Amino acid sequence: MNVALILVAAGSGERLGAGMPKAFAPLCGEPLLAHALRGIFGCAGVSHVIIVAPGAHLDECREVAARVLAGGRPLVDIVAGGADRCASVEAGLSALRQDDGIVLVHDVARCLAPAELFERVISAVRAGSPAVVPGLPVTDTVKVVDAAGLVLATPDRDSLRGIQTPQGFLREVLQQAHSPANPAAGSATDDAVLVERTGGHVQVVTGDDRALKITSPLDLALAAALLQDGSYAG
Amino acid sequence: MNVALILVAAGSGERLGAGMPKAFAPLCGEPLLAHALRGIFGCAGVSHVIIVAPGAHLDECREVAARVLAGGRPLVDIVAGGADRCASVEAGLSALRQDDGIVLVHDVARCLAPAELFERVISAVRAGSPAVVPGLPVTDTVKVVDAAGLVLATPDRDSLRGIQTPQGFLREVLQQAHSPANPAAGSATDDAVLVERTGGHVQVVTGDDRALKITSPLDLALAAALLQDGSYAG
Repeated sequence: MNVALILVAAGSGERLGAGMPKAFAPLCGEPLLAHALRGIFGCAGVSHVIIVAPGAHLDECREVAARVLAGGRPLVDIVAGGADRCASVEAGLSALRQDDGIVLVHDVARCLAPAELFERVISAVRAGSPAVVPGLPVTDTVKVVDAAGLVLATPDRDSLRGIQTPQGFLREVLQQAHSPANPAAGSATDDAVLVERTGGHVQVVTGDDRALKITSPLDLALAAALLQDGSYAG
Repeated sequence: MNVALILVAAGSGERLGAGMPKAFAPLCGEPLLAHALRGIFGCAGVSHVIIVAPGAHLDECREVAARVLAGGRPLVDIVAGGADRCASVEAGLSALRQDDGIVLVHDVARCLAPAELFERVISAVRAGSPAVVPGLPVTDTVKVVDAAGLVLATPDRDSLRGIQTPQGFLREVLQQAHSPANPAAGSATDDAVLVERTGGHVQVVTGDDRALKITSPLDLALAAALLQDGSYAG
């Protein structure tokens, strides 16, 4: 089964405050998109990459991909994103090729995810899990609050995982999750929850510190510290 | 009502790998304890600080506190920690003075918490909330897993907060929470949950990025990036 990866890179990056779409925000002199593609292209198991780009920046995406891509593989397609994250994933799904049997969904905001994390997710799908997400133990105690900030519950921290991407799926499982026929489709903070809502099983595998999500200037500072610290090199 | 602060600083710091108790691990040339005390001493509302120190390092704590302390306030007591975090908080409680009416519990691992965060927690207790914790929205989707890593639930991310310290309490509320008479006392990842388990109300106020918890070498790298970036100066 071929592995395709949908790279969701259509976000505005408003919180990041770089004055440009997040995919092009610079990190140590290179756009997040270039860092993300380097990690993906480093994973031999991915044979098809679909970049879901801001509609007005398709050419710029193509240039970044061409610069990072060394040699003829993987196959790269670029499509325009939708109005929200879900619509962007669906735009990516529409660009799948016939022999793509496993589909990974990845956020450009997690641009330092290393090649071995992609391998780990792919291996778990190949080993029989139809939906796989990387996760790490949470450091902070997490509480559930109401709209006024009053605490409703404190789940046992040992049972919680902070979930990352890439998330990996059998193609038909992800397609069903995003199908208009799924009453749970639509708003979601990740793709796996759409599978869960229809009773599907989701397996967590060990995540990676480097797959942190860059959403704020502080996250950018951390990512730069990671890049500059050799002990975290991918 | 006077405000006392129990600084839990007795941890081994094993995960940090600095080869010394966490309180003395260096961050930009100074021990975490010195950074933490600078933030606390910068908050005029705290009049009594109880440092719960590793039993074998009381003198070293005293030296660090004397170096950071400028002028005669606040009052500083140093006591030896217990076998776990809960026992250490209880050691701190035993050192309260008669006129301490509000008690903050703070972890040395959150050594960059700025003075205004302490003020915010104290203000909320003074305004009538018997138990107050700082919290921030979580960035990652959080999932509840079973022992095999299979996903059991994905709580709505908008309803979750990553909880920090300092946590603030009316003295009697915290004392009751830690009392041997409280069947819920004992193991807990924060103090507020002991209050919740007996039906008490806990209010979340806005936390602060700088109050991040330093548990791994990666966290230390982030804290250093924060300290060196003027825009995050306390």
